[in-house]
Amino acid sequence: PKTKYANNNVAGVVTGLAWTSMGGDILFIESSMAKGKGKLTLTGNLGDVMKESATIALQFLKAHHDWLDLDANVFNKYDVHMHVPEGATPKDGPSAGITMLTSLASLFTQRKVKKNIAMTGEITLRGDVLPVGGIKEKILAAKRADIKELILCEKNKQDIDEINEEYLKGLSFHFVSNMREVLDIALSNQKVKDALTVQ
Amino acid sequence: PKTKYANNNVAGVVTGLAWTSMGGDILFIESSMAKGKGKLTLTGNLGDVMKESATIALQFLKAHHDWLDLDANVFNKYDVHMHVPEGATPKDGPSAGITMLTSLASLFTQRKVKKNIAMTGEITLRGDVLPVGGIKEKILAAKRADIKELILCEKNKQDIDEINEEYLKGLSFHFVSNMREVLDIALSNQKVKDALTVQ
Amino acid sequence: PKTKYANNNVAGVVTGLAWTSMGGDILFIESSMAKGKGKLTLTGNLGDVMKESATIALQFLKAHHDWLDLDANVFNKYDVHMHVPEGATPKDGPSAGITMLTSLASLFTQRKVKKNIAMTGEITLRGDVLPVGGIKEKILAAKRADIKELILCEKNKQDIDEINEEYLKGLSFHFVSNMREVLDIALSNQKVKDALTVQ
Amino acid sequence: PKTKYANNNVAGVVTGLAWTSMGGDILFIESSMAKGKGKLTLTGNLGDVMKESATIALQFLKAHHDWLDLDANVFNKYDVHMHVPEGATPKDGPSAGITMLTSLASLFTQRKVKKNIAMTGEITLRGDVLPVGGIKEKILAAKRADIKELILCEKNKQDIDEINEEYLKGLSFHFVSNMREVLDIALSNQKVKDALTVQ
Amino acid sequence: PKTKYANNNVAGVVTGLAWTSMGGDILFIESSMAKGKGKLTLTGNLGDVMKESATIALQFLKAHHDWLDLDANVFNKYDVHMHVPEGATPKDGPSAGITMLTSLASLFTQRKVKKNIAMTGEITLRGDVLPVGGIKEKILAAKRADIKELILCEKNKQDIDEINEEYLKGLSFHFVSNMREVLDIALSNQKVKDALTVQ
Amino acid sequence: PKTKYANNNVAGVVTGLAWTSMGGDILFIESSMAKGKGKLTLTGNLGDVMKESATIALQFLKAHHDWLDLDANVFNKYDVHMHVPEGATPKDGPSAGITMLTSLASLFTQRKVKKNIAMTGEITLRGDVLPVGGIKEKILAAKRADIKELILCEKNKQDIDEINEEYLKGLSFHFVSNMREVLDIALSNQKVKDALTVQ
Ligand SMILES: [Ca+2]
Ligand SMILES: [Ca+2]
Ligand SMILES: [Ca+2]
Ligand SMILES: [Ca+2]
Ligand SMILES: [Ca+2]
Ligand SMILES: [Ca+2]
Ligand SMILES: [Ca+2]
Ligand SMILES: [Ca+2]
Ligand SMILES: [Ca+2]
Ligand SMILES: [Ca+2]
Ligand SMILES: [Ca+2]
Ligand SMILES: [Ca+2]
Repeated sequence: PKTKYANNNVAGVVTGLAWTSMGGDILFIESSMAKGKGKLTLTGNLGDVMKESATIALQFLKAHHDWLDLDANVFNKYDVHMHVPEGATPKDGPSAGITMLTSLASLFTQRKVKKNIAMTGEITLRGDVLPVGGIKEKILAAKRADIKELILCEKNKQDIDEINEEYLKGLSFHFVSNMREVLDIALSNQKVKDALTVQ
Repeated sequence: PKTKYANNNVAGVVTGLAWTSMGGDILFIESSMAKGKGKLTLTGNLGDVMKESATIALQFLKAHHDWLDLDANVFNKYDVHMHVPEGATPKDGPSAGITMLTSLASLFTQRKVKKNIAMTGEITLRGDVLPVGGIKEKILAAKRADIKELILCEKNKQDIDEINEEYLKGLSFHFVSNMREVLDIALSNQKVKDALTVQ
Repeated sequence: PKTKYANNNVAGVVTGLAWTSMGGDILFIESSMAKGKGKLTLTGNLGDVMKESATIALQFLKAHHDWLDLDANVFNKYDVHMHVPEGATPKDGPSAGITMLTSLASLFTQRKVKKNIAMTGEITLRGDVLPVGGIKEKILAAKRADIKELILCEKNKQDIDEINEEYLKGLSFHFVSNMREVLDIALSNQKVKDALTVQ
Repeated sequence: PKTKYANNNVAGVVTGLAWTSMGGDILFIESSMAKGKGKLTLTGNLGDVMKESATIALQFLKAHHDWLDLDANVFNKYDVHMHVPEGATPKDGPSAGITMLTSLASLFTQRKVKKNIAMTGEITLRGDVLPVGGIKEKILAAKRADIKELILCEKNKQDIDEINEEYLKGLSFHFVSNMREVLDIALSNQKVKDALTVQ
Repeated sequence: PKTKYANNNVAGVVTGLAWTSMGGDILFIESSMAKGKGKLTLTGNLGDVMKESATIALQFLKAHHDWLDLDANVFNKYDVHMHVPEGATPKDGPSAGITMLTSLASLFTQRKVKKNIAMTGEITLRGDVLPVGGIKEKILAAKRADIKELILCEKNKQDIDEINEEYLKGLSFHFVSNMREVLDIALSNQKVKDALTVQ
Repeated sequence: PKTKYANNNVAGVVTGLAWTSMGGDILFIESSMAKGKGKLTLTGNLGDVMKESATIALQFLKAHHDWLDLDANVFNKYDVHMHVPEGATPKDGPSAGITMLTSLASLFTQRKVKKNIAMTGEITLRGDVLPVGGIKEKILAAKRADIKELILCEKNKQDIDEINEEYLKGLSFHFVSNMREVLDIALSNQKVKDALTVQ
């Protein structure tokens, strides 16, 4: 419960929000690629449901490659590795879905992720964003970590409405219902420094 | 128990009916494809029997590709991913069989699924539709979710006959005995917007 | 315990006999094929011993392809899927062996299975048919399901001799000791309607 | 405990001896082949140690292919399936080693196994035959099953010496220390009827 | 708890620090390569989290091959085996991350690792070094093992500040925040004797 | 506890020393090869740590193929099977490391192993030999089995020094610290009879 927002210098790194019995915290989704054949490797002590989220995010990106001006074949030419620090902490659940999608989108486009933004939300294969639990704890953790903007499912708006406004100062919210909105909000048009040529 | 029928804009998305100790609910089967070699990926916290249903549905479609004017080779040219939200809920049992079949049929043909329709029924490899349990709870959930039409196994008609007619108002039923009937009823002749060219 | 004999219109579908703590019942072995590389997929909530029976049946057919005028290479050109409804019921044991063999033989030859016939018996890799348990319960279930003819291992004849003749009315029995007899009895010379060209 | 010696008409079928808490019995090792790529499939409810015995037997045969005038490449051109009836009985232990070796040797050479012979003994990768347990019970079972000749490890001779001679009447023994002796004794020079051309 | 620093004559061998209920100790990460296809083999009785560290280290090196003047394709031309003696001791946790990274970097570049240096720290896929536990015990073990220099995460500096200065005599510390610093400090510019030509 | 040293006529067979709650014993490592693609098969009821030892030994040999005048490519042209009799006895631990290395070295070079020699010691991937436990019991077992020479880790010398000299009569010891010494001592320059041409 003391992680801080880092920076947005590296493609594929996105800030999410976690919620455990210990309270809320931010977490990072980190994706990296190497020439390969489309294999997806997942590390970070992840449970089965969280691994499924990564699979869904990657398939969604494949199916909507045109949204990001990606060539459909690019996904079979790289192996992708997604890691969620810290390795000693077991993690599970579907709530990192939109964070994983954004991570992969940033990786394949080499576009920067917007600064000081964090997000939490389940994804579906058709592109809907679903609400998740622990919103209050996650919001408090986001503030402590210097997050300024948050992406949440529109169905989680009611959870925000129940939080004392005092706690929300300095935070702006994006309530979304589908993954296109997530990508439009989260991805900067600027590429990272020393961007790879992904093709 | 508060999911709503969404829409039929996306190919491969079909509304099914679930029944748990918590009561009935609707669920969605979502299928997506990408250029590949015929691999089937299943997500959504599915048990072994539910995974088997997806395998049977895909094999049935392969064996009856001519029903839908599909080329037999098309199944070896795409990887298919089938997901059943929500990821945190474990799901099992054979009752999503006809929903999965319809999902795959819609995906490969890119034809729309009929509006406001839901279905539940086990499938067999020879094409029969078998009855399933929890019909009363599933029907009530369907109504709450704005479903108008239901496809059920003809052997489940007796379960409907036992329900107070009051509860059935506004619902129309299709009682089927084989999978051809399911596809004839569920699939619209209209393609989805921006339909893929599957070949 | 209320399944009925269906029909013999589909290649690869054969009626077997099951015996559980709930009594006897008929069951169906359903096999389907698709262009592939010789993979065998098994569904229906099957235990390891029952899965082994399917493997033995397929290997036996490969080794004796000439019995059925099949080309030896045909087995490497198709993937086979064998399913045993109903998916929610766990099944195990070796007694479906001859039913599985007949199912695969019907599938690859596209020959009809004889009408109103059912069978139960373990198979060996050398082609012997071995006796199985639960004969009395299985026979009673067969009658209820409108079965007229039964194939049993000759070593199960003694189990039939112990059953009150009253119960056996309308049933005729084939007692066999090897798999060639099974195929000679069970397979019709007539092909199914719209038979596939398997080559 | 009522299995009988069958016959030696089929290549790859050899009679072994089993010993369980229920007493001794004979068992059959059955091997079958099909054009393939060298895959070994094992069925019959076998434990890990018994599966290892089959692996050792196959590797030993590969390494000593010249003993039987086999081409070294033949092992990569066929898939082998080894089955040990009866499927419902779990089996384990290393004592079927020489029986499995003889089965594979008969299969690849298509030579008959000597009539009314049975055997039991562990094998090693260098070709030694090791002693096994339960000799007394196995011998009694062999007699009941009409076995006339037995192959045992020479280190099991002491177990035979302790058996009342009365029980040994009509049995002749081969005490061996290596696998070449086993094959020399067990394999007839005569091929089976309708022998395959293995090449 | 009596292992000694060895030497730096072999590429791919790096000294790490372990911490168990028995106290601190040094451990060695040993990597070796052979012509192959990019497979990573891990031995040494490693738990899942520790295996994940090796995967992350290898992926990080692939993604930053230019740092070490390595060709991107070289990783697909060799199989890598990483071992952590002693085999009888189970090991787990993420703290060997920077040690594993250094081991792989030394292996692929064939550069010597600096003499009498040890390190401990978790790695992330984006290249950050994270703090680890057991610093006091690890430091004491390092001294006993004749280590002179230590690489630690800068966030572990506070743990050092709490140790009695008496115990730190003869030790110099490098506090790092990212993996580039680790490699700059740990890798000598000198190649090992009889260095392989890795290409 | 009654195994005897056998002979050194077969390449790939080496005598090791085991230590269980039942006391010490000798054991044999047997390796065999066949034309293949570099697959390593392990049998003999081995635990994970013992399997890892075999993997390390093979990798070490690959990395140091020049020590034995072996071509680097030879390892990808053969499948290796390593077996440790007796199959019914579970075995584990790292102490067979140097025995496995010697077995593989003898197999690939087809050189005889020195007569009446046995060994025990853990290996590391960099080539060090590590001490192992149970030395007293292993030495006593070696004498009973007619072993004349022993290879041990130099760090196990202290265990020998504690044994009553009476028990050591007739035994000579080689205390080694690395794997090159092991191979120099254990491998004869003479090839086995009917040596294979490994290339
Ligand atoms: Ca944290
Ligand atoms: Ca999140
Ligand atoms: Ca719901
Ligand atoms: Ca359903
Ligand atoms: Ca039934
Ligand atoms: Ca049956
Ligand atoms: Ca029996
Ligand atoms: Ca036997
Ligand atoms: Ca130590
Ligand atoms: Ca470390
Ligand atoms: Ca022994
Ligand atoms: Ca040893």
